[in-house]
Amino acid sequence: MNIGILTIGNEITGGRIQDTNSAMIARAMHRQGWIVTRMMSVGDNYDDIHDALAYLLSHVEALIITGGLGPTADDITTEAVAKAFGLELLRDEAVLARIKDLFAKRGLPWTENNAKQALFPKGAKIIENPLGTAAGFAVYKGKKVVMVIPGVPREAEKLTLDGVIPIIREAFPDAALHVKSRTFRLFGIAESAVDEALSADHLGERGIGVGFYPHFPENHLVITVREASEEKAQTLFAEACKIVEMRLGRYIFAKDDESLAGNIARLLIERSLSVSTAESCTGGLIADSLTDIPGSSEYFERGVVSYSNEAKKALLNVPDNVIAEHGAVSEETARLMAEGIREMSKTDLGLSVTGIAGPSGGSDEKPLGTTYIALAAREKTFCSHYTFRWNRRWNKIAASQAALLMLWRYLKGEIE
Amino acid sequence: MNIGILTIGNEITGGRIQDTNSAMIARAMHRQGWIVTRMMSVGDNYDDIHDALAYLLSHVEALIITGGLGPTADDITTEAVAKAFGLELLRDEAVLARIKDLFAKRGLPWTENNAKQALFPKGAKIIENPLGTAAGFAVYKGKKVVMVIPGVPREAEKLTLDGVIPIIREAFPDAALHVKSRTFRLFGIAESAVDEALSADHLGERGIGVGFYPHFPENHLVITVREASEEKAQTLFAEACKIVEMRLGRYIFAKDDESLAGNIARLLIERSLSVSTAESCTGGLIADSLTDIPGSSEYFERGVVSYSNEAKKALLNVPDNVIAEHGAVSEETARLMAEGIREMSKTDLGLSVTGIAGPSGGSDEKPLGTTYIALAAREKTFCSHYTFRWNRRWNKIAASQAALLMLWRYLKGEIE
Repeated sequence: MNIGILTIGNEITGGRIQDTNSAMIARAMHRQGWIVTRMMSVGDNYDDIHDALAYLLSHVEALIITGGLGPTADDITTEAVAKAFGLELLRDEAVLARIKDLFAKRGLPWTENNAKQALFPKGAKIIENPLGTAAGFAVYKGKKVVMVIPGVPREAEKLTLDGVIPIIREAFPDAALHVKSRTFRLFGIAESAVDEALSADHLGERGIGVGFYPHFPENHLVITVREASEEKAQTLFAEACKIVEMRLGRYIFAKDDESLAGNIARLLIERSLSVSTAESCTGGLIADSLTDIPGSSEYFERGVVSYSNEAKKALLNVPDNVIAEHGAVSEETARLMAEGIREMSKTDLGLSVTGIAGPSGGSDEKPLGTTYIALAAREKTFCSHYTFRWNRRWNKIAASQAALLMLWRYLKGEIE
Repeated sequence: MNIGILTIGNEITGGRIQDTNSAMIARAMHRQGWIVTRMMSVGDNYDDIHDALAYLLSHVEALIITGGLGPTADDITTEAVAKAFGLELLRDEAVLARIKDLFAKRGLPWTENNAKQALFPKGAKIIENPLGTAAGFAVYKGKKVVMVIPGVPREAEKLTLDGVIPIIREAFPDAALHVKSRTFRLFGIAESAVDEALSADHLGERGIGVGFYPHFPENHLVITVREASEEKAQTLFAEACKIVEMRLGRYIFAKDDESLAGNIARLLIERSLSVSTAESCTGGLIADSLTDIPGSSEYFERGVVSYSNEAKKALLNVPDNVIAEHGAVSEETARLMAEGIREMSKTDLGLSVTGIAGPSGGSDEKPLGTTYIALAAREKTFCSHYTFRWNRRWNKIAASQAALLMLWRYLKGEIE
């Protein structure tokens, strides 16, 4: 099953925007077990679109086109596709009514040029767009199928999953497998260690696809199962997930669309716990993550970025002599920062980070990237030590992620 | 001058990575005044590469290829290009020596497979790579030129600017113009207002290219001048920059690779001024930006994320009755937060933000996105009011940017 992708727009060929639709579609096709052999981009130009269509259709069985479905004069994709296949354009009254309805709902004045978005090649199958005015469509050419969807990334993704994939599955039933996929979000483990952890399970031989995608500071492990029967797919998928959780459970902090901060927020709220933060090298990044979740005032009391030693003393009660003796970047200081913010804010938990983000400030004893992370709870204070070896920004991100992970593990009862 | 771009790699067609090289190259070509008419991606596969080369070369005069120059078995670009043009591969001893030297310098053991990166099609012109082991090359086919560069984005960009563009300029002297370009980073002004501000100057008619690129929360205005003579280009470029600074100066916070936080840091250090922050809805994002700059401890004393009213009282001296009377999100509270953090941290400046990031918490009087930003200086406290209409994350980013901009304008003496 060979797939082609064609993205259309002068803003792409002129380098004005980064085309993200091609990669999104390629990934969605890959999950189905279909192979993308050609990806192409051309400008809003009849000849180039016509010629690209002919070239791609001579190499692939299904072609997905995005972009150029807007109401303005330079949006010519529908017309170009119709021309290339010798089809006239017909107005779809149901789509037109829906577009007019959307305008009314949004309080926008209706202008006749927008009716263009209700024109489709004769015989086309409409791909509905619940997110906008540009509906997509599919036209069949012999045994091949060409699908056109809008270029707005959010809409393109929705229509790829809900429109394009079902159409290809229907057109090529032999290639239509039952697909199950899960993304495990990992932190603190490298690709080689993941390979090793899973090596004894021989996932590949059992028909379980494994992909590893770095998304700093996370690593994403994607498990995909493709089977002819739904039942077999479900069984194998459940087995695959069980293996991954057993082997890598302690590194998994979220699945699919979950986020670490979101999962932490859920547990804090469930258990009516509150938290405050005391940050040095992360500069506010932990507080920023914890306050990205709607309703965060329910569990987040305050955050302190105690850059100076005076601030550590005034806001966290860290005595001068501890800093003088052990240094601002030390386990002792990290512990006192966490305990200090917990006491002063009267929260259940206090989370602290102190470290050397770089690019300067390291020593033989405490090299660049040296970071101490502490979590103060009622019963005990925990502390971890890391040496991050990235640039300043990435050291901040990694330290923030490691601190959130310590909080997450504590909330799950994994550290005590 | 028609240009084609071909990116090669199974990681691209499988959707494993986002190809950013195509857009980077397209933009670089656009600045030179050259038109990219075809962008294509194929996997690491001889037949597909061969066929794509033939197709693209029938449509463009210059073709730029990235990817597949690594030392491993699946990196076949050089061999595929040589095959397609019927050229044998020859070892370049100077390149080989350089690669071996790099291995030695990095303390890596030499293995013979790496010698592959010193093989080039006979007659190829080497494009040196100062950033890695994969050198690029150019081969000429009649009047056309094919250039191959590595896929690592940092290396691809360097070799595009320093290798590819000079080669195309030399091969097509009629298309080689003197190009000058500057990116102005703007905040707080929309595209339509930029258009209006520049309309009387008729930049297009004078041969000054203007591009507008949204990069939330910033907008980038790119001015490009392309002329046959260097002198004319310099004169027109200076004129263009002068016009933009005159018309839009107050919205410009950085140029080209500068950042707002970096420019603020420079002024604070120059003038020996220190700053502290008191944040509510931005959750630490302002402190995070200010501490992204190496050496930030020179000017940043502390940051406070005062989410609760207790924190506003304890850390910023904001009295209960002010919050009770005017609300936590009010001009009065914002001013007291800025003054409070300035006094308690003994810094020259105190910067504060309080607002409703959403998605809930708005009212008729204070709708979602309502944000107050205050800057306390020795002589006076300034306050601004905004209503941001984005989602929670974007409201945080916009509020943080607006606060930094207030600090920047104060440091430049634009508000007093």
